[in-house]
Formats: sequence, C-alpha cells, structure tokens
Amino acid sequence: MIDKVIAHIDANKDKSVERLLEFLRLPTISTDPARKADTRKGAEWVHKVFTGCGIKAEIVETAGHPAVIADSGPSSNGGPTVLLYGHYDVQPAGDESLWHSPPFVPAIRDGNIYARGSADDKGQVLAHMLAAEAWMKVAGKLPTRVKFLIEGEEEIGSPNLDRLVKDHRDRLSCDYIALSDTPKFDAATPAVTYGTKGLVYKEIVVSGPKQDLHSGSYGGTLTNPGNALAKIITSLRDQDNRVTIPGFYDSVRPLSASEKASLKELPFDEAGYQKAMGTSSLEGEKGFSTIERRWARPTLDVNGMYGGFTGKGASTIIPAKVAAKVSMRLVPDQDFNKISKAFDEAVMAAAPKGVKVEVHTHSACSPYVAPLESPGIKAASEALERGFGKRPYFIREGGTLPILPLFKQVLGADSIMIGLCMPDCNAHGPNEYFGVSDLHNGAKTAAHFMNILASGK
Amino acid sequence: MIDKVIAHIDANKDKSVERLLEFLRLPTISTDPARKADTRKGAEWVHKVFTGCGIKAEIVETAGHPAVIADSGPSSNGGPTVLLYGHYDVQPAGDESLWHSPPFVPAIRDGNIYARGSADDKGQVLAHMLAAEAWMKVAGKLPTRVKFLIEGEEEIGSPNLDRLVKDHRDRLSCDYIALSDTPKFDAATPAVTYGTKGLVYKEIVVSGPKQDLHSGSYGGTLTNPGNALAKIITSLRDQDNRVTIPGFYDSVRPLSASEKASLKELPFDEAGYQKAMGTSSLEGEKGFSTIERRWARPTLDVNGMYGGFTGKGASTIIPAKVAAKVSMRLVPDQDFNKISKAFDEAVMAAAPKGVKVEVHTHSACSPYVAPLESPGIKAASEALERGFGKRPYFIREGGTLPILPLFKQVLGADSIMIGLCMPDCNAHGPNEYFGVSDLHNGAKTAAHFMNILASGK
Repeated sequence: MIDKVIAHIDANKDKSVERLLEFLRLPTISTDPARKADTRKGAEWVHKVFTGCGIKAEIVETAGHPAVIADSGPSSNGGPTVLLYGHYDVQPAGDESLWHSPPFVPAIRDGNIYARGSADDKGQVLAHMLAAEAWMKVAGKLPTRVKFLIEGEEEIGSPNLDRLVKDHRDRLSCDYIALSDTPKFDAATPAVTYGTKGLVYKEIVVSGPKQDLHSGSYGGTLTNPGNALAKIITSLRDQDNRVTIPGFYDSVRPLSASEKASLKELPFDEAGYQKAMGTSSLEGEKGFSTIERRWARPTLDVNGMYGGFTGKGASTIIPAKVAAKVSMRLVPDQDFNKISKAFDEAVMAAAPKGVKVEVHTHSACSPYVAPLESPGIKAASEALERGFGKRPYFIREGGTLPILPLFKQVLGADSIMIGLCMPDCNAHGPNEYFGVSDLHNGAKTAAHFMNILASGK
Repeated sequence: MIDKVIAHIDANKDKSVERLLEFLRLPTISTDPARKADTRKGAEWVHKVFTGCGIKAEIVETAGHPAVIADSGPSSNGGPTVLLYGHYDVQPAGDESLWHSPPFVPAIRDGNIYARGSADDKGQVLAHMLAAEAWMKVAGKLPTRVKFLIEGEEEIGSPNLDRLVKDHRDRLSCDYIALSDTPKFDAATPAVTYGTKGLVYKEIVVSGPKQDLHSGSYGGTLTNPGNALAKIITSLRDQDNRVTIPGFYDSVRPLSASEKASLKELPFDEAGYQKAMGTSSLEGEKGFSTIERRWARPTLDVNGMYGGFTGKGASTIIPAKVAAKVSMRLVPDQDFNKISKAFDEAVMAAAPKGVKVEVHTHSACSPYVAPLESPGIKAASEALERGFGKRPYFIREGGTLPILPLFKQVLGADSIMIGLCMPDCNAHGPNEYFGVSDLHNGAKTAAHFMNILASGK
C-alpha cells in the first residue's frame, strides 16, 4: 500500500505546491491584532484540509488564536499513536523592502518557495497533512492512529497551549509527539533533532548612589555600580569558561559514549561555522568540542548591559544604576528551579559591599532530550532516509522549545523533531523560503513515518 | 587705605547686589548658538565695569565667544602680579519647571540670590571686580598689579583658551593666578582649594560576532563580548580597590605628613556625606581615609556601559558589540600620557581570545596641586579670614580643571582657588544660588588679598 501512497504523492506534486501557495497567501501573523481575522482563516484552511479528506477535525477556541485538533481515529492494528504538532501562525514580515518578492505573495525561484511562513511552519506542517491525505485517498485510512494539534500562537510563545493541552489531555494522548519545525543538517541531509536546551533568563540590577554622581567629586569613596556589575558577571565563570555557580553541573547528564561518537561523526564544518559568525576564533568551556558545547553543555551568556552615561563622548559620572541581562542555557537533567535559585545566590555572594543588587527572572524553562533508542526516533530516521534518499543525522539544538517539556509532562510522551527545511531558510528574516523538493520529500517522509510506525519495524 | 576700601565696599553693599542682578539677567549660555549675541553682552558688561572705574580693558576675540582682558598696570611698589581668572558664561537652565523662580530673572530669598550663574561664576568673579573698583575709587589705583582674564567658554570646556593664553602670554604674565570658581568648605567656613585631579577618559569597545547571534544556537562556542568586557573591567582593580594597571601608582606623590595632618583635622562629616550620596556604606582603596581617597588618591570608575539587548523583558542574544566608558582621576605626579598608554595595554592584556578590543581616548588632562607654603596661598588664606571672619580650610578637589595645568605650563604660575560660594549651590542644577553675604565678604576678601600680596605679608 505504501507504494501506492508514494505514487499518489508523486502524481500530485504540482497540486501540493499550489496548495502550499494558497496557505502562504494567508497573512496569519499572530502577534498583529489587525490580523486576528486573517489568522483565524489559517485555522479554517487547516481544518478544511482534514475534513476534506475524511479526517475528523475541530477548531478549538483558546483565549487567543484558535488551534485545530484532528484525529484519524483508532487504528485497527494496535499500532502506536502519533500526535503531530505544528503551527499555522507566522512571524511578521519585518522590513518588506528587504524582500525580493512580497512576503504574502508566494514566488517560486530556483526551486524554492519564497514567502513568510514557508519554512516556519506552513510548508513543514503541510508535508504531514499531505501524507495523511494521500493515505486517506489511497487507502481510506491511515496505517496508524495520527492526531494533529496545529496551533496559531507559536510565534508569540504559545501562551494558551499549556491550558489547551491540559484541557484536552485525553484527546491528545499519544505514544509520540512528532513535529517538523527544525532544519535539516545541510542541503542534502535531513536531520532528526532529539534535544533542546532549557533556559533561565535573568536581569541583574545594581544600584549605588541615589543619583548619578560626579566621578571627580565622589570617585574613590563609594562602590561604583558599574565596576560592581562587571565583578559579579566575571565571578560567574572561571578561566576555563566553566560556570562557577555552586551545583551548576551537578545534574548535567554526561554524554553517553554512543552520543559522543555520533556527534564526533557529524561532518560539522567548524571553519564555515566560525566564518558565518565572523569571530576570530571558537572558544568555550574547556574539555569539550565545539559541537558538544553547542548542543550538550550548559552555558551562561550576557545578553545585554546598560546604565550610566551611554551617549557620544564623555560624561564623568558614577552611575546610580546599571544592569545586565544574563541567561543560562540548560541541558538534561538540570532543574531550572534549582539553577535559578543557585544563580541568585551566587550573584548575591559576589556582590561587593556598598551597592544594592536585585535579580529578576524573565523566563525559566526545562531542557529536553528524547531517548535516541526510542522506536519513534528510529522510525523517523528510517522514514527520512526513504523520503530524502539519505540517512539523516541526529542533532541537538542549542535553542529552547518550551512545548517539549510541556508535552512530556502532560502527555507523558517524547517528541521527535523531523527537520525538513534548510538551515539557512531565513525563518524569522526577510526572504524566508522552503524548497519544493523538501515539501515533496517531506510528504513522502511523513507517509513512510506513519507506515513504519504501524509496522512496528 | 584698606580700611577706607572696606568701608567703601560696606557702604555700597546694596548697589553691588543690584549690579550682580543686572549681570545675572544676561542669559550668557555659551553652549546655545541662539544665545551667541546674549553671551557677547556678558563680555561687554564685564568690559564696562573695568573701563568704568579706570582699569584698562579689552574685549579679545576668539574662534568662539570673546574674552575680556583687563590690567591695572604696573605697580609702583614692586609687589607681585596676580592674574584673576573667571568666566562670564553660564550653564543652560535645564528643566525650567524645576526652578522656583525663572533662571534669568534673579530673585532674592532668605539672603540668597537665585539665578543661573549666580555662583558659577558671575557672583564669585564679580566679588573680585568690585574689590578692584573699590580700590580704584578710594585710592585711584590697586595696591598691587592685578590682571583679569574673564572668558566666555568655561562651560563648554574652554576650547579656545589654550590658544588665547599662548597668544597673549606676555600680557597675561603673572606671579599667581587666582580664581573663585570653587565652593567654601561649609556655610560658615571659606576654603582655599589647592589641588585638582587629572583625568583620562576611555571607551572600551569589545566586538565579537559580526551580528547579534541567537544565544541558544551559538552560545558556548564563541567568546561573548559582554562577558569579555566584564572580565576586562574587573581585571583593572583588585579586591582592595587598588588599580592593577602596571605602574599606575609609580608616580603618585605621597601625602606629606603635614597635609595628612591637615586633612585629618578637617571636620569632614562622613555620615552626612554618605547620606547625601544615598549609599549603604563608604568604600574605596584600602588603607586610606575617605577624604584622602576623595582628594588625594587616583581612582578608576565605570561611567557607563551599553550593548546587546537592553529593552524590556528578554531577548536571547549574544551581542555583536558592547562597550563601557571608563575614566581615571589622576593625582600629582601621575603623567596622563603614561597612564593612558598603560591603561590601553592593560585592557589589551586582559582581553580574552576571540573578541576584538578597541580603546578610544575621549580626554586626558593633568592633575594639579599648588604648593601649600606659597606666599600667594598664605595671602589668600589671610584675606579669607579677614573677609569672612573665619580661618579657611585647605582642601583639594576630586574634579578636574584643565586650565590650571595650562596656566602652569604657559605662564609658569601657580593657581590659588578662593572658594566663596556654598558647597550645595546647585551650580549646574536648578535653583542655583549665591549668598548676598558671600558676595559682600568675597569682595572684602578680594580687597584684602590685593593688599596683603602688595605688603608682602
């Protein structure tokens, strides 16, 4: 049966592209109140794809933009249930003058579809929808039970997803969550992303005198908040770029030998990576490779700093207040609550006398990693190999996806990230694009994925 | 003769106040191009005071606002020549809503004259002019030769003074420079300020990646410019708040035993000073008293820092560039060129790998200290005691007056700072004021000063 499904996908390639273009014409910008009605049209469009091919679906209201929940129904063969997560909302277009074609008038150039949301996430989620549709058209049913949760608020931080998932816990119950919202490894090679980092984001505010003071009249007689802040930040890492916060590494799960080997095998182009960043060298925690530091080691970074005189030229003041935004990326099994508390304590311990130090927490989120040996991961890998003709790499991601620990916590299921788009797809920038072949290979991958899961192979 | 001069000053007290009010009504804001003509009126007003009492005077043009040079002519008794420096220009008014009466409509309340420029420097310089006038009216001449240099660009950093002094070196030649542009010690006690600090003002710019990077995708693989900047700043001082720049203290002239004793004797109100600043404690270089650190020890302070994400909330970036303004106040005999170079080298030495560090110099100026045993200082002290009825304190100033090393260098003469205004006179803020009694006692002090210098006592 899978051959017929693949043949159907092949035969409908052009039509599928047409449908993505239609989807992309909807300016579903979730952050823009003026686009509220347009955003809802995205949900309606998605809903219609499911109902149009016989999959039960519902537009589920939230306090914000609605989500679409679909369900292919119980499978007869006892195969696992997959919850396919995606989102129909998109980022704002940004400066439209930087786009070579209008962001909501999709254009195909050199085999790529240029439009806002093409890669993030409309093209990627549509690949899975097209696969489900092909199965319905060819076989009248899906090979295993597939549920869909396609929300409209991912680009604004999914403020209502927690409530939604909890309210529909039973309806969304599953063995695996699958999502395509991450990139391939490179143009030729798809990727399974199996881990993301957690995040604790802080702001350190150091206050000294009640107002800016003349640095001549008062210098040398009080603690300067600027010097104090520098000292506090510096104290948080040692000469080897290891974080010095007590207990910081206690719960870090060491890389397994097999994962270490897998990372080492990756054809990671260090020189190209460094060139893309534009730095004079790659640096970081002593004793770990670049890729290990990037994906599997926790970090602590200054995100911004401000205070005192910041205009042109010179003003001789001792600032009343300075501040820095400092964030940590966490890895399994670091507990963000413990790290958050330990950070605050370390900052307070490093504060010199004579200044008042406050620490604010902007956000905190768990890291996530899926077990590499999971049958779901294996099925995704196998499906990608069939869909793209090349074995995928297993990669992790330095960024944070709060939905993954949420799913794990509420639904008890692991997430599999099946990357279909290009690493340089300009997801949040101008000229976002998604390859026509990636849509096609993605749909075939998704069709195989359902089939392989069902066969238990 | 001095008694008659003092009697004349006493008799004309009210008239003198009227004249200061007239002077203060001129909005001689040197930084405001719209006030260019008004600023010139300040020079004309000053010029007229001198010529009106028979002292030769000239309005001298510069590339900016004009200065007034006056000269009482050679003295017959071989007494020393004093160059009285002052300025007729004023700071902008700032937020006028914070003034209790309009800044250029002088108002007398509780014995104080409220107006922009009343203390800085119109009231103070007028005291000396009134004294010269009194001598001319009573005696037909001054007891010793007095020259005046009253410029119109002090509040914009005296950009043309260097040229002016060099061009008129012979005309301005003198044994002492005297100026009243500093405060008394407290309400009851006048002060002779005999030293100011030098200044080296730097901006450290740390650049890393060519653009802001996602802290998740790139964190841990490159040197973060924010962390690097904190480390550099921290490296410049040790745990005891001593500056660690090699050679920094090499040329610092130790306080003499007599100066140490004189500072110790000062009734400096540490608790009040701390309260005024609003800090929880007084801190600074280990081993020195607050007053020693304030006036006689070099310092290194952050003046401002900026870079990366500084908006509300959280943005997870590694900043491409961050910067800090850092300045040092110097004391005799530190050489600002040497210190400037040593700072740059220390910053470069502390810079971690993987970032580009640049250091810009915004300004650099020598410290200044006058010999306490100079007859000019003694004459000023004696004159203040007669004028105010209380022996002055000898103090130093943490701020920087670039004109003092300029005078020393070009004219070879030491400067004597005779403080007549209140320490809290709001010189650059709203509701600047100058006491009626300070104008009167200041004029008497100036009259005595000329007389004591002439008598060689």
